Amino acid sequence: MKLPDFSTPLNQLTAREAVLRLRGSKIREVANAHLGRSDVIAFWFGEPDELTPEFIRRAGIASLEAGETFYTHNYGIPELRAALAGYVSGLHRPAAVENIIVTSSGMSALMLATQALVGPGDRVVEVTPLWPNLVEIPKVLGARVECLPLDFSPSGWTLDLDRLLSALTPGTRALYINSPNNPTGWTITRAAQQTILEHCRRLGIWIVADDAYDRLWYGEGAAAPSFLDIAADGDRLVSTNTFSKSWLMTGWRIGWLVAPPELVVQIGKLIEYNTACVPVFVQRAGLAAVQSGEKVIQRTVERYRRARDFLIPQLNAIPGVQAATPPGAMYAFFRVEGMADSLAFCKKLVVEAGLGLAPGIAFGPEGEGFVRWCIASSEERLAEGLERLEKALSA
Amino acid sequence: MKLPDFSTPLNQLTAREAVLRLRGSKIREVANAHLGRSDVIAFWFGEPDELTPEFIRRAGIASLEAGETFYTHNYGIPELRAALAGYVSGLHRPAAVENIIVTSSGMSALMLATQALVGPGDRVVEVTPLWPNLVEIPKVLGARVECLPLDFSPSGWTLDLDRLLSALTPGTRALYINSPNNPTGWTITRAAQQTILEHCRRLGIWIVADDAYDRLWYGEGAAAPSFLDIAADGDRLVSTNTFSKSWLMTGWRIGWLVAPPELVVQIGKLIEYNTACVPVFVQRAGLAAVQSGEKVIQRTVERYRRARDFLIPQLNAIPGVQAATPPGAMYAFFRVEGMADSLAFCKKLVVEAGLGLAPGIAFGPEGEGFVRWCIASSEERLAEGLERLEKALSA
Repeated sequence: MKLPDFSTPLNQLTAREAVLRLRGSKIREVANAHLGRSDVIAFWFGEPDELTPEFIRRAGIASLEAGETFYTHNYGIPELRAALAGYVSGLHRPAAVENIIVTSSGMSALMLATQALVGPGDRVVEVTPLWPNLVEIPKVLGARVECLPLDFSPSGWTLDLDRLLSALTPGTRALYINSPNNPTGWTITRAAQQTILEHCRRLGIWIVADDAYDRLWYGEGAAAPSFLDIAADGDRLVSTNTFSKSWLMTGWRIGWLVAPPELVVQIGKLIEYNTACVPVFVQRAGLAAVQSGEKVIQRTVERYRRARDFLIPQLNAIPGVQAATPPGAMYAFFRVEGMADSLAFCKKLVVEAGLGLAPGIAFGPEGEGFVRWCIASSEERLAEGLERLEKALSA
Repeated sequence: MKLPDFSTPLNQLTAREAVLRLRGSKIREVANAHLGRSDVIAFWFGEPDELTPEFIRRAGIASLEAGETFYTHNYGIPELRAALAGYVSGLHRPAAVENIIVTSSGMSALMLATQALVGPGDRVVEVTPLWPNLVEIPKVLGARVECLPLDFSPSGWTLDLDRLLSALTPGTRALYINSPNNPTGWTITRAAQQTILEHCRRLGIWIVADDAYDRLWYGEGAAAPSFLDIAADGDRLVSTNTFSKSWLMTGWRIGWLVAPPELVVQIGKLIEYNTACVPVFVQRAGLAAVQSGEKVIQRTVERYRRARDFLIPQLNAIPGVQAATPPGAMYAFFRVEGMADSLAFCKKLVVEAGLGLAPGIAFGPEGEGFVRWCIASSEERLAEGLERLEKALSA
């Protein structure tokens, strides 16, 4: 018998090449060795510092007590789909139940949209720096990802629209865009959205909008500018979202997406092959959040706005630090002059100063020289962190 | 500008070709129009008829009350991984925490293992009839799936081992095997496992064992024969499992897998890009199940064994019906003589007789002519179902 042509050597008990090449988290590389250390003040993860509000937890508990422990609809329970259709319609544009599908996290929504749209060899364009997951997901499906970097200045991050349009060539399968952006806070303008939408319409390019931070928005209106506001029926737009940030529900793993009904049906099939459905008791909690959670969002936005307005000026007051004021999301992403290895810098910072921050390189090569600080924290903790940073930089 | 070569026409708001070709559920096609009808006795879905035991729900509720609503480890909470390592070690062979990863359902475990191992164009072999998900998942990743049918006789389903070995050619990436099998109940013998394992070892073929029903086993021992019993370190084996069937936890969406540590690390990366983690409160419920759930399993197995021994002889007593006694799982998968369109047959059955069964064609072309009946039910309901089937067939 002829020896086979193994794609993986016999002695290699591991995954295929495309998966081996996926990035592990460089935030985890900094943080993992120090988790649980009480002498470290950590702002490395992108997570609210408050637990899920009581009324939301109660809704989940009541469902478990009522015995809702069986399989449910792939698409989500009808009550939650209807509530989300109303929520999206109120914030953006009329959405029907047929546009909505409930997913096992915003993460899962992005994976499902990608499985539905992106195949081997497809070309995908993304605006960076960017949380790594969005860049890596299409690679799981064999796509080629091209990154277009934002430009930094102390007055803010900006998009070179002409460069982006040039990158969105005929045959490009999808544009992935996260706005407000993790880590920079950059938020796309309505005018840029309009131009991009028209360009993508003309060329048949899908827009996958990661709208996880749309409610963590410090500008005018109840939500950041969304492609949902300007899209028409027939547009190739998928908006993914999550309950994690708006309603302090990171640990619940529930999200949703808005898409043309034709695509929702296909994603419904894929849900069956990914997680089958979201637990009913988690969906009941989500329903309580959508129905009665506006106050939670308002309180959170005010809290983060104050944190931002406290932190950014003091960061800029540290010699060698440049921080733009983020118009959205929950991060300060600042430059440290003369620092060229953010991973080494952050590892040193946690060991020597007891300060936990995320290295800019975790968000792509475009993030090198920067550091991310999650602002979802009390002023006392932020002040203590600032003191430690200042000391470390002046040492 | 030259017009692009669109892989999807501009007027088509839908998924890529490989996803369009994925099967939707033919069980759903029969059931969806009749859900909630009180005059229909339904055995179409593969789900226990009892809700999750109180002590398991209590563990989830206590976690929610304690405020465990934050992100957690990609790999699962350490306590649960340790408990599962102990569970697997007790039932099969020594497993370390490093072999275990907790997933957002057994379904997700299969999707993750597939993402890790199977790429575009890879060849995968599966033993059928088989629940459709296992056949469709590799296609999401662009793999070619070759099905090898079991042989039916009224005394049981059998595997033609020589044919399977011939199908496992050099260069084949993986064998997917579900035993005890949904829908047939077929369970692989130890001898066949040994031969297959040695063959796959020689050729570097991965074995992905879907062990969801390993505890729903009516033969000798606490679990059905598992590849885990005979595998050695260095074998290319992934065993996926779920809390759904053993502990009556379908709606919780939690599972796990056992794999070489090198692969666990890669799957850990993929979890980040699929669902990130399983909710802590769901994992606490899972921990209670593993630690204190043996009695639940014993009770369930006895209950299903009685249901099986009640149902199978009476099915065989109906003229034209042939049913083998399943050694495992929770289904009767029986042939109806002269019936060549199981989808039409089952649709008619629900409308005219108020009996909900799953069409054999839902489990692949090899299942045509058969019908699946989930036995997780009371004797009263089974008896009523039998009466309706008999009437319908004699009409």
